[in-house]
Amino acid sequence: MSVVCPSFISRYPVVTMAHGGGGRLMNQLLDEMIHVAFRTTEDSERHDGAVLETAQERIAFTTDSYVITPLFFPGGDIGELSIYGTVNDLAMCGAMPRWISLGFILEEGLPMLDLQRVVDSIARAAERCGVQVVTGDTKVVERGKADGLYINTSGIGVLRNNTPFIGPASIKEGDAVILSGDVGRHGMAVMSVREGLSFSTTVESDLAPLSGPVDSLIGHGLPVHCMRDLTRGGLASSLNEIASAAGLGINLCESKIPVQEEVLGACEVLGFDPLYVANEGRMVLILPREAGEEAVSLMRSFKMCENAALIGSVVPSGIAPVTVKTSVGTSRVLDMISGDQLPRIC
Amino acid sequence: MSVVCPSFISRYPVVTMAHGGGGRLMNQLLDEMIHVAFRTTEDSERHDGAVLETAQERIAFTTDSYVITPLFFPGGDIGELSIYGTVNDLAMCGAMPRWISLGFILEEGLPMLDLQRVVDSIARAAERCGVQVVTGDTKVVERGKADGLYINTSGIGVLRNNTPFIGPASIKEGDAVILSGDVGRHGMAVMSVREGLSFSTTVESDLAPLSGPVDSLIGHGLPVHCMRDLTRGGLASSLNEIASAAGLGINLCESKIPVQEEVLGACEVLGFDPLYVANEGRMVLILPREAGEEAVSLMRSFKMCENAALIGSVVPSGIAPVTVKTSVGTSRVLDMISGDQLPRIC
Repeated sequence: MSVVCPSFISRYPVVTMAHGGGGRLMNQLLDEMIHVAFRTTEDSERHDGAVLETAQERIAFTTDSYVITPLFFPGGDIGELSIYGTVNDLAMCGAMPRWISLGFILEEGLPMLDLQRVVDSIARAAERCGVQVVTGDTKVVERGKADGLYINTSGIGVLRNNTPFIGPASIKEGDAVILSGDVGRHGMAVMSVREGLSFSTTVESDLAPLSGPVDSLIGHGLPVHCMRDLTRGGLASSLNEIASAAGLGINLCESKIPVQEEVLGACEVLGFDPLYVANEGRMVLILPREAGEEAVSLMRSFKMCENAALIGSVVPSGIAPVTVKTSVGTSRVLDMISGDQLPRIC
Repeated sequence: MSVVCPSFISRYPVVTMAHGGGGRLMNQLLDEMIHVAFRTTEDSERHDGAVLETAQERIAFTTDSYVITPLFFPGGDIGELSIYGTVNDLAMCGAMPRWISLGFILEEGLPMLDLQRVVDSIARAAERCGVQVVTGDTKVVERGKADGLYINTSGIGVLRNNTPFIGPASIKEGDAVILSGDVGRHGMAVMSVREGLSFSTTVESDLAPLSGPVDSLIGHGLPVHCMRDLTRGGLASSLNEIASAAGLGINLCESKIPVQEEVLGACEVLGFDPLYVANEGRMVLILPREAGEEAVSLMRSFKMCENAALIGSVVPSGIAPVTVKTSVGTSRVLDMISGDQLPRIC
C-alpha cells in the first residue's frame, strides 16, 4: 500500500525510545512511514492539529482505545479494528464518518515490520470507509510497559441536517429489533489464536465497517430509533444497556439469532454463550415495526449484513431488561454479565 | 470536586480486568466515577459518541496520548496534562477549544484512589479551560502491560470565521519570534521526582492552558502567522520544525530567553540544555515585527505568560534552520536532537 523506504526498516528494525522523543528519529518515523501511508498534505504535516471544513453544523465525536491481543488475528488486525471500530461508533450516532485521529503507544522493541503492517492496514481500512486520518500522535514506552502497541482513534462524523436524535431515549414499545448478522465470531477468532486452539474450520472475525448499511438506511429515510454496534459483552450487554437506558424491555426470539455452526461448536467446547461474545462488525437496529422488513432487506444488500434478521421487539419493562424466548418455548432472562468472558478483545 | 460514593472505592480498591469488560463492573465504574465527574447528560450516557452543534463551519481536530511517569509531579499530574496538552494543541491552530474525548488505558491493580485523583484533576482542568469532556472509553490491560494508566485525549475546537491559516507556511522573513515564558521547568520538575533529586527549591512544572492568551491575541486581531506549544524536544525542536517546514531560518538572541535560576542550576548539574528540555505551558508566537510589542504586552497580562519576551526573528535560510547569538557575541547552531533527553515526559 504505502511505499516505505526499505532502508528505514533495515536501519531501525525495532522501535526505540528515541522514536517517541520528539526529535529527529521521531520525525523520520513520521516522514518515512506515517505520512507516506496517509498522504498527509504539506500544510497539515507537523502541525498540532488539523483544520477541517464541516459542511454541516452537527457533528458526532467518538473515541476508542484498542488494546487487543494478539495484534493479528483471523479476519483482521489491530489496525483495521482501530478504524472500523471508530467508524462504527460514528455510524451508530447516525453520522457519516469523515475524519480520524490516530494515537500510537508503541512498546520499545516492537518490530518495525509489525508497525508497518499495522500502518498499512489502517490506511487501507480508512480508504475503504472513505475516512481520512488527519492528525496523530506517537509515544514510545519502555520494554514491558505496553504489549506491542496500543492504538487510540477518535473520529468525527457529520450528521445530515434532518437526522433526528438516534439513541436509547428514542425507542418505543412495539419497535422491531433487527440484528445485522451472525454473532460471536470476533471473540472466537481471537480466542482461537490466543489459546492456540484449532477448530475444524477457522473462525474468522466479523470485523467490518457498518457505515455503508447505516448510510443506506438513513438515506432511504427509514425512521431509525436506535443503533448500537456489538462489541465487548456481545449482543446481550448492548441490549441490556439500551433497554435499561430507555426504561423499557426487549424480548428476543432465540431461534432467530444467527450463529455460525463453527462458533456454536467452539462456544460449547469452551463454555461460552455466543450472545455474550464480542463482535466487531455487527449492530442492532431498533425502529418502528412497520419499517422492519424494508430495513432488513436494505441491510441484506450489503455483504457484511447478508444475514440480517428481525430477532425481537421492544416491550413494556418487565422482570428484566432483556428476556429471550428459547427454542423450546420457555423464557429466560438475558442478564448483563459482571465483567467480560474475554479480556483484551478490542 | 466530584462526589464519588466512598463505598465504591472501598468495594474496589484497585482496578480489575472486569472494570474494562463491557459488563456490569465497567458500567459501575462509569456511573460512580466518570459520569459523576463530567456531569454527563442522560442523552449522551452510554452512547457510542457525542453529537455536537458547531456554530462555525471550520473546526480543528487534534489528538495526544499521555504516558508520563510519574503520574503525579510537582505542579501537576497526568490528568491536568491530558487536558492542557490537548487544549494547547487546539489553541495553536487558532481554534477555541470546545470538546474533549477521553480514552483511559488502565493497568490492572491501579489503586482506585489514584484513578479518582486523576479523574477529578481532569474535571477541574476542563472546567478551567471551558472545555467539555463529551465522550470516552475505558480499557483495562493486565498487570505489567501498562504503567499505571495511559490517557488519550482528542479535542475539537472551532475557528473564528475570518481566522487565516496559522502554521509554518505563513511565516515571513523579518517576523518576530516571541516566547511566552521561561523554559525547561516541566522536564526538570519530572526529572527531580523520577530521579529522587532534591534541588534547593522545588522546580514546578510550567503546565498551563494557553487558550486564554491565544484567544486574546486573535480576538485583538493580531496577524498571527504561526504558533507552537513547546513540549517534547523543547524550544529548540519546535523552532527547528517550524523553520524547516517554512524553508526559512530563525535567529535567536540567547540572553533574551528566560530560564529560571533553579532550572539553570539543575540543568547544569545534570548536563541538560534548557533549550531542549520539555515544557507544557509555553509557546512560541511568530508574527510581523510591527505587531511584536503589542503581542508581548497582551500575553503578559496572563499569569502563565508574564515573562513573555521577543527572543528572535525569522531570517533567510542559512547554514542551519535555527541559530543562536550567544551572550558572548558568537553564533551557534541550535540543532534538532536525535531522540529526546528525557523519555516519558508527557
